[in-house]
Amino acid sequence: MGIAVENSQPMYLESVKKLVPESFSAEEIFPYASSKGLPELRKLWQKRQRLKNPSIKQSSLPMVTNALTHGLSLLGNLFFNPGDQVILPDQFWGNYKLLWGIHHQAQINIFSMFDDQLNGLNLEALQQKAFCQDSDKVVLVLNFPNNPTGYTLVEEESQYILKLCSELTAKGKKVIVVCDDAYAGLSFEESCKKESLFGELSELDSKLLAVKIDGCTKEHFMWGFRVGFVTFGIKGGTEALYNALETKLAGSIRGGISNVNHIGQRVLLESLKSSCIEKEVEDKKSILQARYFKTKEVVFSSKYKNYWDVYPFNSGYFMCLRLKGVEAESVRLELLHSFKVGAIATSKTDLRIAFSCLELRDIEPLFKCVAEAVERLLPADNTM
Amino acid sequence: MGIAVENSQPMYLESVKKLVPESFSAEEIFPYASSKGLPELRKLWQKRQRLKNPSIKQSSLPMVTNALTHGLSLLGNLFFNPGDQVILPDQFWGNYKLLWGIHHQAQINIFSMFDDQLNGLNLEALQQKAFCQDSDKVVLVLNFPNNPTGYTLVEEESQYILKLCSELTAKGKKVIVVCDDAYAGLSFEESCKKESLFGELSELDSKLLAVKIDGCTKEHFMWGFRVGFVTFGIKGGTEALYNALETKLAGSIRGGISNVNHIGQRVLLESLKSSCIEKEVEDKKSILQARYFKTKEVVFSSKYKNYWDVYPFNSGYFMCLRLKGVEAESVRLELLHSFKVGAIATSKTDLRIAFSCLELRDIEPLFKCVAEAVERLLPADNTM
Repeated sequence: MGIAVENSQPMYLESVKKLVPESFSAEEIFPYASSKGLPELRKLWQKRQRLKNPSIKQSSLPMVTNALTHGLSLLGNLFFNPGDQVILPDQFWGNYKLLWGIHHQAQINIFSMFDDQLNGLNLEALQQKAFCQDSDKVVLVLNFPNNPTGYTLVEEESQYILKLCSELTAKGKKVIVVCDDAYAGLSFEESCKKESLFGELSELDSKLLAVKIDGCTKEHFMWGFRVGFVTFGIKGGTEALYNALETKLAGSIRGGISNVNHIGQRVLLESLKSSCIEKEVEDKKSILQARYFKTKEVVFSSKYKNYWDVYPFNSGYFMCLRLKGVEAESVRLELLHSFKVGAIATSKTDLRIAFSCLELRDIEPLFKCVAEAVERLLPADNTM
Repeated sequence: MGIAVENSQPMYLESVKKLVPESFSAEEIFPYASSKGLPELRKLWQKRQRLKNPSIKQSSLPMVTNALTHGLSLLGNLFFNPGDQVILPDQFWGNYKLLWGIHHQAQINIFSMFDDQLNGLNLEALQQKAFCQDSDKVVLVLNFPNNPTGYTLVEEESQYILKLCSELTAKGKKVIVVCDDAYAGLSFEESCKKESLFGELSELDSKLLAVKIDGCTKEHFMWGFRVGFVTFGIKGGTEALYNALETKLAGSIRGGISNVNHIGQRVLLESLKSSCIEKEVEDKKSILQARYFKTKEVVFSSKYKNYWDVYPFNSGYFMCLRLKGVEAESVRLELLHSFKVGAIATSKTDLRIAFSCLELRDIEPLFKCVAEAVERLLPADNTM
């Protein structure tokens, strides 16, 4: 319905057809995909989720979104009324503010993510923030590996968070935990929690709704394809309940973008069927892991101790420096103009470095540039 | 920024790369496209807009959206506060209600689209609705060729609407006119207005903002690619004003979906450079035009006069029957179950038929099925 048809196929222009992969028929690319996404893709992605997260015992079928930002935006439509509160660490991806803070007028409730010694999560700060919510609904975001710091939970932190969630539901709160698993799989240290907390959260309590946001953007290095997924999990979740959530989400997709691009879904679907794909992902992960270890070796060097502290990192694409005595934005500009190096100032003191973009040989020189930029900007009486 | 890099290229998996067109480099498909869209695509689409609409003298550079629904949704973000009113004909694409009525809580103000004899637009009804707005802002949607009726303005109707808009601004109203040009170019009668009213509206008054929503979805038969455009036009529009609108729209894109899929933009961009593309569009249009003429010949046949009236149509993908003595939804179900024919009931009496989906030889048999379905459902004392 709603498309023109010729010879029982979608009508298409030759100049367009010859630009799409030959292996796909017009039927596999040209028509609209349904608002929920390609059914076969949804099933294959679920299979993959469960392979990588054995703790998932039951959940909804993943819904296809225009990648992860869209998934987060849809959750805003579903769950946020103006003034609703959402708990985030102070180290959060800036787009949450735009998505939920501005668009849905949610109140973003920040806790200090790391303890003073920068050794790990500031669990007391999280607990305090969670229990000071005056509404009967608590929305918490878990984004590990974290953007911007590249930090992933270790096991005891995971258990602490699960216990915290149990305590909240025991107090009668409705809890929504959003697992923003954008960088899932990219953990580089043995101690990292390998699975998303989504699986365990889905078995915790019938008053806790776990939501998994994931996709091929970073997991399969397919940034521009815009294919992500939203999956729900709740203890004792029935098919009827999951269907209701799905229908609500599909309505929100229709009313915002109608449907997600078909060609991106098709490419992901076919690539998931390849027998090599997981090996290829592992190979790329190894490359990033080597960059991670090199970065770790460099940034903790004692020669830089007067220039920055290092936020805990063990995973993902990025790491963050807490600069000493200079403004991160000034350092960013100095890096850009004098050294043609790009970085992101995520706060007054913090500089995000994407080690995922750096060849091994470029890592040491890059941090040398950062140090030199800091050196130039330090007040005269403050230099080493 | 924000993507992993290897050998100065985006990092990618071989299983994915071999599924994308060989003619494109990884750089041309894998990274994020900017929130405003590919710059070269925006320029080429503008060039094409002006070629097809010589009345456009100045306008903003088109912004890329996840096709037309997303464009309409973004306008809602920009212009609607809860309770704001928008004028639509009673023959409107159902998604407007979901988009603006539900999502933005706008009040949808309906006028009867056609005059009693179904000969053309009900201009008095439109005027009455436009002047009874009590707010100082009037939002009007022009969707021609219209979904669901397939009707396009004729010249004198266009002039009437332009005059009406002038009268509104003369009264001090701020006017926003949304030209939903989804089916642009598909006009099949000589009398049809060939251009969008966007060009003339853009020159009318500095208190009138014209917005053009268009894209390749129907104009280039690329439904699943999800690439559309939003373009602004206002009398005396300066670059600074257009940039401000663009920046606001880009923020709304970032906060909703981040950016539009790259591969769809790339395929459209390259196809626009083809020297054959306009000829190919004309060829497909000729096929649809032949179906249109055949449909027209069939539906007005006197043997059907007791079964339906025909809404005016002269363009687009669809036409609508106003059924006599039966409910459209019952006819739809009867058609589906007994004849395996799909149609859409757009109201209690109206049935939308997509002649764009029908081969020439199937048109006569289809309407025979509709007549038979009506016949079966008519109360016994009402049959011919």
